[in-house]
Order: sequence, then structure tokens, then C-alpha cells
Amino acid sequence: MWGMNAPNQRPIGIFDSGVGGLTVAASVRKALPSENIIYFGDTARVPYGNKSRSTVTRFSGQISDFLVEKNVKAIVIACNTASSFSQSYLRRNYDLPVIGVIKPGVEKAVSLSKNGRIGVIGTEAMVSSRAYEKELFKISSKHKLFQESCPLFVPLVENRMTSGEITSKIAEKYLRPLKRRGIDTLILGCTHYPMLRPVLSEILEGVKMVDSSEAVAEALRKVLEERHLLACGKRRKNRTVCYVSDDPLKFGKISGMFLKCPVSVRKVVLA
Amino acid sequence: MWGMNAPNQRPIGIFDSGVGGLTVAASVRKALPSENIIYFGDTARVPYGNKSRSTVTRFSGQISDFLVEKNVKAIVIACNTASSFSQSYLRRNYDLPVIGVIKPGVEKAVSLSKNGRIGVIGTEAMVSSRAYEKELFKISSKHKLFQESCPLFVPLVENRMTSGEITSKIAEKYLRPLKRRGIDTLILGCTHYPMLRPVLSEILEGVKMVDSSEAVAEALRKVLEERHLLACGKRRKNRTVCYVSDDPLKFGKISGMFLKCPVSVRKVVLA
Repeated sequence: MWGMNAPNQRPIGIFDSGVGGLTVAASVRKALPSENIIYFGDTARVPYGNKSRSTVTRFSGQISDFLVEKNVKAIVIACNTASSFSQSYLRRNYDLPVIGVIKPGVEKAVSLSKNGRIGVIGTEAMVSSRAYEKELFKISSKHKLFQESCPLFVPLVENRMTSGEITSKIAEKYLRPLKRRGIDTLILGCTHYPMLRPVLSEILEGVKMVDSSEAVAEALRKVLEERHLLACGKRRKNRTVCYVSDDPLKFGKISGMFLKCPVSVRKVVLA
Repeated sequence: MWGMNAPNQRPIGIFDSGVGGLTVAASVRKALPSENIIYFGDTARVPYGNKSRSTVTRFSGQISDFLVEKNVKAIVIACNTASSFSQSYLRRNYDLPVIGVIKPGVEKAVSLSKNGRIGVIGTEAMVSSRAYEKELFKISSKHKLFQESCPLFVPLVENRMTSGEITSKIAEKYLRPLKRRGIDTLILGCTHYPMLRPVLSEILEGVKMVDSSEAVAEALRKVLEERHLLACGKRRKNRTVCYVSDDPLKFGKISGMFLKCPVSVRKVVLA
């Protein structure tokens, strides 16, 4: 149906390795209430954070092919690892706007930081890619970036251990080096991490937390505006359709934690 | 080369979602020193423990096709989740011996337990499959089985956190219900768990631990003997070739923790 619409009425494609990118989908729904969304969660191959650049880029390409078939007008990479590894590849190979999470997050952090010392936490793959450093370097030479990989945070969130003694101890271990560096701003460089915000804020008292999802929604709005692709007209409500590569039931259950509305979930096997 | 050999000189195929199944490969090398091994680790899609039956079975079929192309004489499923979900499918669809980790582990536990109370720990998928219960039911009606899923154990091992306060606290949380049940034998129902043995033994003092890998190697020897497929002749040393679906370098580095010998690692993309 959407395929028959005018260019600006086409849906926005958002993808992630799994369920975490729904935080971005939620922000896009809020900021752009007239837009329809097609979300893809690669739940058969989740996580991406411990995989290589070439593998993550291959997966991102397969998903983008799927989204383009669904006639999306823009692609949002709602995954820090995929943004780090695959954004430039997707921009070169797809003829539509591609928005990642790195740049909006860095810009927001730079605007918030007073002492110029910014921390970023993420998966091993994201940290090793140095994507945040490269992006910051383009924007500012005055700010310093300190990175830590937190490989246990995603399993903690996915097992609903977002608080408690174990989670606090793990968070303390990961955040100690950043605390020592005197950061005043922390980029939550993984879509799962906003779920841990209370624990992180307790350890890093007074440090400003950047959840990129809102910044991404704003960056998306700007790009769509520039290209005259913003959906117009009042809709009663926008529609979010989710596709996943593994069990839709399990995804449907956990999705409520991230996206506070019912969604239809369908399974699709990519090859 | 191996393809040209007599049936008994063909290699043994072993697969796992990642690196953990190398514990089984190590036991097979030790028990059957004349055999060559082809190992497949599905590192692009690891882990399997949080995925559905249909997805894990699809992956297992793709890997078995690859191993059959490599002319293996038997397939060892060195992964508890894949054994739980896919063993019966592979037995129906492949005309060669298929050995999983469940039955050998259960048999060993039954032979060791004095009070008839056996615990098993594993991934969520494995526990939900009830494969261990079904297997035990075939062997003995006297023994009782108590299961716990331990979703953080694999990330802990893969991040080399096999000891320390955090690991002990997580292990205590998971093992408390089993301790209360008065088990005297614990099946380590995931190939990563033997790495945590010291921590587990400290919490479950006096409880016998079953690492299925040795039992699997014995089950494999028995099947090969029955079918006259044991390799004969003295080799200077057997050969293990590993194939992985993601970065071979990373696999090569971590493999030393599991398999105490150098191996050649090659990448292959399955579809």
C-alpha cells in the first residue's frame, strides 16, 4: 500500500541487531507523529557488538535491501555497532538518506559538556571502531573523548537485570576509569543502555547522560525537511510495523519494555 | 584430500554456535588421537541460547550441509542448545551418525548420582526445550532433575571473567535454587561452563560436576566402532581444521583458551 504513495508518504526504515533500536523508533514516533515506520530487528543474529566489521556490514546491507524493497524513504541505523561499521558503506551504496546514531550523539554531547571531557560507553566492536573519536575530531578539537566497552550491559538488560547489587558492581567496574578521567558528559553508545540510566547516574553523580535516540530523531527530521520528504497531513496515529529474523512472539513480549505501544511483528528470513 | 579416503579415514565434523564446542573437540582429540576433525563455529550468529527452535534448526541444517560437503563420517553437535533443538531433525535428514551432548551427559550424571537428585544448568533455550528431562525419563524414573538457566555465564566466560566477586555473586544467584534442592550432581549443560568450574565448585561444595565433553567423546567412539568407522593406523598427530562464519583472527586468539594446540582457522559464509 505504502509503495503507491507520494515520496513523502513512504515509511521510514529503522534497523537494529535486535530489540534495542526500538528506543530510537519511540523517539521518532514522538518527534515525527505523522510518519509510518518499518522496523527491522535482526534477532536471529543478535548481538552485533562482538562481531567484525565485514560481517556487520554484510548484515546491514541485507537489511537495507529488505527496507528498500519495502519502499522506505530513509534508513535509520538504530545500532551503534552497525553505525560505526556500516554507515559509510550504506551511504555509498543506497540512494536515500542514511542516518546513524554516532554524529547526533556526539553533537549533543559537545553542546552539553562544560569541561570538554566526554565519556562514551558501548560494545567492544563500537569502541574498537573508534567511530566516536573520528566524529568528534570533525566537530571539535577542544574536546577529549574517553571510551569504555561494557560487554555485560546488553545481557544484563536483556535478562531484565537493570538494577540490584550485581548490576551496580558491574557498572562500577566499567565506569571507574571514566570517573577517574573527570568526564562531565557520558554518551550512552548502545541502544540498550538507557535502561540502565538510574544505575549509571548513581555512580556518575552529576554527569550528564546523552541518550542518542532523541538526537537521532531530530537529525532525521532535519534531513527529511531538507529533501521535502516529511509526511504531511494529519494522521490519526502513525503505524509501526516490525520485522524480525527470529521468533516474533518473543520480540513482541520484550518490545513493550522499549516501545510503549502495541506493534505488529512479522518474521522474515534474510539470506 | 580427505574426500578420497576410505570411509573410516574421513574426518569427524563437530559444530557449535561459537568457540565453546572446542572443549568437545579437545576431548575427542584426546580420546581418539587417530581422527581428523573439521570444526565449525557459527561466530557470525553466536549465541544460539537466546534463539528459537526453528532458527537454531535452520542454522544446524546449513552447517551440517557444509560438513557433509567436507565428507565427514559423523557429526557431533557440540552445543547444548543445538542438541536440544536440532538433533532429531539432523538424525532424520542426514544419513550418518549424529551425536549430541544431552544423552552422554545424562548417562554420566545418572551413573554418578547417589541421592538421585541431579541439577542441570544451561541457556534459556536449552532449559525451555526440556531436552534433559526427556532424556532422563528414557533412562531412569528414579532420578529427579532440577534445571536453572544461567544467561550471564556465557558473556562472563567470553569476557574472561571466570573468577572474582562479580562472577561469584552471579553464580550464587543462579545456583541457590539448586543448592536448596539438595542435588549431589550437576550437569554443566553448556560448553562454556567448564571454564567456571572452580567458582561453581566453591558454591556447590561436594557436588559432582559433569562436563559432557568426555562423555560425548566416549559415545562417539562407541558409534564409530559399531559402524566400523574408527580411523586405523598410527598418525604422527591428528589434524583439526576450524571453519568460522565471522573473523578467523578473533576465533584463533580465543581458541587457545579451549583447545590447547594451534589450529588453522578459515572463514566461510553460509547462506
